[in-house]
Order: sequence, then C-alpha cells, then structure tokens
Amino acid sequence: MTAIARTDPRDFLKDLTSSRAARLLRDALDRRWPATTDTADRLSTIHRYALLPAGKLIRPILMLESAAAVGGRPEDILPAALGLEYLHVATLVHDDIIDADEMRRGRPAVPLVYGLPDAIVAGDALIFTAFESITECRATGVSDSAIGTAIAVLARAGTDLCRGQVLEAQLVGDPGIDVDIYLEMIRLKTGALFRAVCEIGAILAGAEPAHCQQLASYGEHLGVAFQIRDDLLAYTTPAVVAGKSPTNDLANGRTTLPVLLAYQAGNRAQRRRLVEALNHRTADADALKDFHRLLEETGALERAPEHVAEHIRRARNQLSTLESSPSVAVLAGITHWATARQW
Amino acid sequence: MTAIARTDPRDFLKDLTSSRAARLLRDALDRRWPATTDTADRLSTIHRYALLPAGKLIRPILMLESAAAVGGRPEDILPAALGLEYLHVATLVHDDIIDADEMRRGRPAVPLVYGLPDAIVAGDALIFTAFESITECRATGVSDSAIGTAIAVLARAGTDLCRGQVLEAQLVGDPGIDVDIYLEMIRLKTGALFRAVCEIGAILAGAEPAHCQQLASYGEHLGVAFQIRDDLLAYTTPAVVAGKSPTNDLANGRTTLPVLLAYQAGNRAQRRRLVEALNHRTADADALKDFHRLLEETGALERAPEHVAEHIRRARNQLSTLESSPSVAVLAGITHWATARQW
Repeated sequence: MTAIARTDPRDFLKDLTSSRAARLLRDALDRRWPATTDTADRLSTIHRYALLPAGKLIRPILMLESAAAVGGRPEDILPAALGLEYLHVATLVHDDIIDADEMRRGRPAVPLVYGLPDAIVAGDALIFTAFESITECRATGVSDSAIGTAIAVLARAGTDLCRGQVLEAQLVGDPGIDVDIYLEMIRLKTGALFRAVCEIGAILAGAEPAHCQQLASYGEHLGVAFQIRDDLLAYTTPAVVAGKSPTNDLANGRTTLPVLLAYQAGNRAQRRRLVEALNHRTADADALKDFHRLLEETGALERAPEHVAEHIRRARNQLSTLESSPSVAVLAGITHWATARQW
Repeated sequence: MTAIARTDPRDFLKDLTSSRAARLLRDALDRRWPATTDTADRLSTIHRYALLPAGKLIRPILMLESAAAVGGRPEDILPAALGLEYLHVATLVHDDIIDADEMRRGRPAVPLVYGLPDAIVAGDALIFTAFESITECRATGVSDSAIGTAIAVLARAGTDLCRGQVLEAQLVGDPGIDVDIYLEMIRLKTGALFRAVCEIGAILAGAEPAHCQQLASYGEHLGVAFQIRDDLLAYTTPAVVAGKSPTNDLANGRTTLPVLLAYQAGNRAQRRRLVEALNHRTADADALKDFHRLLEETGALERAPEHVAEHIRRARNQLSTLESSPSVAVLAGITHWATARQW
C-alpha cells in the first residue's frame, strides 16, 4: 500500500483504466451498444451516445473489485456492473437537463443534442435497463436470493440519490447551513450509489453479510470523500482559478463544503461578499478569481481537505479486516487516488 | 358476462373503484404516503401530491385481479401493485414535462407546482420505488425466483414504454405513416405496462407459465384497445366536440389512429386540410370542430372503434380457458368498460 500511496494520481488512474476490470467493462459496453446505422432505433442511438466513449468507469470498477475482494469472479457479475454505469449515466443525463449544462465529458450534452423530451425518456430507459442488467446475472449462476437483495439495495440507493438531489436544490444560496446537513446531502447524492456498487458486488459474489456491510461502508465513505474533493476541485483546478474553465457551482449558487467553511470562518464583510457572489448566479473570470481569493482568505481551502482525509480514513478502515488480494489493493489505491486527484 | 356487457360503463367503473381490490389499494397508498407536516421531506410531499387522491387505479387493480384469477391472494402482492401505480404515475409526471401539460386529474400538474428539476427527480424516485416495492413481496412469502422474474418483466416493460415514447415523438406531424407502425408504437407505449401488470400479478401468485402468458397477452391487447379508445375520445367526447375542453393531441400534432385512418380514406383536399391542421400546433374551438368534421367525413370515427373491438376480442379470448371466478369476471368486465367508456 505504501507503493500505491506514493503513486502519482495520474499514473494510478492510467493503470486503473487499463486494468483487466476496465477492459472487461469497455468491451462489454461496446458489444451491448454497437454502433448502428439503424436510425429507427433512436433510443439505442441516444444510449450509445450517452455511454460511449465511456468515462472513468469508477463505479462499475468498484463493483467488480468488491466482488473479487470477497472471492467472486468479475465475469459473473459483469451485466450488473454495466447496469450501475447505466444508472450513473441516467443521473448525468437528467442532471444536464436540471442544470442546463451544455457540455459533458468534453462533448455536447445529451439534452442539447437530442432535445429535452428524448433526454428525459432516455434517462428513464437507462434506469430500467440498470435493473434488467442485474437480473441478467441469473444466467451466470448468481442465486435468486442474492439478485433480490441486490435489486432492493439498488432501488434504495436510487431513492436516496433522488432525496439528495432534492435536498441539494433546497440548500442553494444559503451558505449558513450546518456542515452536517451538507454531509448528509452528499451522503445521499453521491455516497449512496458508491455504497450500492460495492455492496451489490459483494452480495452478488455471495459474500457473508459482515463483508457486504464493510464494503458498503467503504463505498459510502469513499463516495462522500469523492464528492467533497469534487466540490473542492470546482474552485481549485488551475483552469478554474485562471478563469479559463468556469465552474457551474458558483453560477448555480451551490453551497458546497468550501463555501460553508468560508462562511463559518468569515468576518462580516467576507460573509457579505460570499452571499452576494452566490446569489449573483453568474460566474465570469473576475467573479471566480474573487471567490477563490475569499475561500483562500478564510482558510476554507485548507480545511475542506481535512474532511476528505477523514472519510478516506474511514473507508480504508473497512478494508483492514479483508484478506489481502490484488483487488483489496486496488480498492485501497482508489482511496489514495480520490484524495489526490486533480480532475 | 351478458350481465356485465349490458352494464353502463359508468356503473361498472363505480363498482370497480369501490371494489375490495380498489379499497385495499387506496388504504395502502394512504398508509404508505401519509399527509405530513414535515416540510423537510420535500420528495415525499411531491410523491403524495402526485399519487393522491388516486386515479382510477386500473393498472394495480388489474394486477390484483390477475393474481386472484390464478389462485393468488391480493394481499400478498399489494406492495407490487402499488409499485406499478408508482411507475405509471412516474410516466405521467415526466409526460407532463415533455408535453408542457399544466393540468393533471383536474389539478395543477407536478412540474407546474414543484418546478421542472424536482419533477424530473420525483419521477425518477417513483421508478426506483416501484422496483423496491416488488422486492417487498419477499416479506409475504413470494419466492425469490418469482420476484426475480417479475423484476425482469417490469424492467423490460419500462424500456418498451420508453421506446414507445421516443417512437411517438418521431411520428408527430406525419399522417401518412402505416397503421401498423402506430399500433406498434401504442403496443410499446401503453400495451407493455398493461401487459406487465397482468403478467407480474400471475408470476407473483405462482401461476404456471401458460397462465402467465395468457394474462400477459390479455393485458397487452387490453392496453392497446385502451389507448386507441383514448385517442378516439380525444376527438369525440362532447366537451371536445363543443370546443369546451380542447384536446392536446391536435395541438401536439399527434398522428393517432383516427388521424391515420382519415388520411388513408381522404381525398386530396381532405388530406391537405388534415396536414395543415396537424402542423398548425394550436387547437382552438374552431380548429377542433373543423378537425372533427374531417374525421367524420372520412369515416375515421367509424373505423377506429373496429380496431378497439378487435383487440378487445383478442384480450377476451385469453380469458376463455381460465377457470371461472369473480376475478376473471372482473377482467372480462374491464374489457367491456374499455370499449364503451366515454372518458
């Protein structure tokens, strides 16, 4: 693990995305959503556009490695892992409508390309396909009981995710909310799906309940850390600081952790500047630079990473009693990467 | 069955909505979504608004009666029946965004009351809750295998439904399309969910595969007939004809069966009037009256009910080999009601 800890996060991600698990997933995605000239099948065309080229595939990789960490075969649960990617992409497609985001993964977003009506329906269909994918594991010998439990876990994670999104919208514009409310919100919005992918991987691999719970908890804390890091990177990546790649978080008035911490620590003048910036609902280069300065002055940019570290520590703790294996090492490596990643 | 055939459709619906199955469902819905003063739980508030007061509950009633028709106990599959209502309402909430409909069941629609972002998320959450509801039948002793099959059927119905919606959007404005394409579209859009509710009812009741297939086919043909009748009523209910309650179908340029039949039978002038009306994208009282006249002149209003009758005949055929019971009589009664209903 020391070796992994010293790995440059870019190198780790490169290794991860060229790993056997990632290759299995990409090949399966390509086979499942072939390029087609059948323009009549518009729904599949939209799905292929939304799913490929694939993103980092962190969630389905987590599922395959969680299954392998408790002795399962990644091949046997491949359909379910794809399913969790579908669910994740469904939320991205619907998020792009909600946030009116025009770009996703460097390309025009689905709603921009295919229109709002078909984007809503395509997202819905990806949710249905996610559930169908889990039932496909019956063909690889996974027990009906494990599949039933996995479906229940996925459904609960989905409603948690929605609850987190509604809560997030309620918190917009108010930097005075308690940090615990923000943490609960991202536990629902992001932690729940990370939790589900790891838990479902263990369930479908037939792991004992204690291991399923450990991996579930690992996933949840990893997800929370991942989201805090995301919220931090929205203000600290060099392109954002330089005003070259504006973040939507400021324009959308999102009260993420750096914002809450800055408000907590800020004096009256700083708080006023913060509230004004949040409610201005635009974020040009000057506004972003000023906001970044504000987060720096108040110490928020130093304190937010402490929260990341705390959740990563808790995630890693859950791995300590699992038998050492290459998969457990990858799960540990992902926690290091999640702490250090710059994008 | 002769007695049922002679029943006024209003009386039949009244009997149906005061039946034991309907009461079971309404009580369970009320318990599951209690009125709350907890304004923090916004998602549940939206769900309660969307679900209650309940509509006709035709789909969950079909599930309970299908289960009972093959010897199952409605109580044992009540959570799943509620789940299918959630799924139906999820599609209504998302449809109201897509069609920009402001009213639903005589009240302001969910997107109008709660805004587009929360309406998207609330619809998604209802889909997740639908799947969760099916897994809840494990507590009533339904086998894991039956639940796995039911989940697969529901997921497939969901993607079919989405495929139908995308196809419907593609057909807008073109009255020259083949009737078979329209029939395939409504088989996906409406038939698939009717099929699924009946099939899942039978599956969860532990019915033999042949009976599951018969009830699935009954549901599909009933759903297709139901949709054609709906498309017809959009132009023939007295309020629409009088221009008092304008239909959205004309304003949205929907090429439903009456429109296709009118185009097929129309002369050059009539076809031109039809295309113009469809592409005008408004539907004031005069436009509607003129359109109704056009459908009458071309015989479309007489020929469309023949398609309803044909699918009802096929639906009823599927019931012929089931053992007589009050539930089979209700399933037969619903086919008569679906043919004759005026709203």
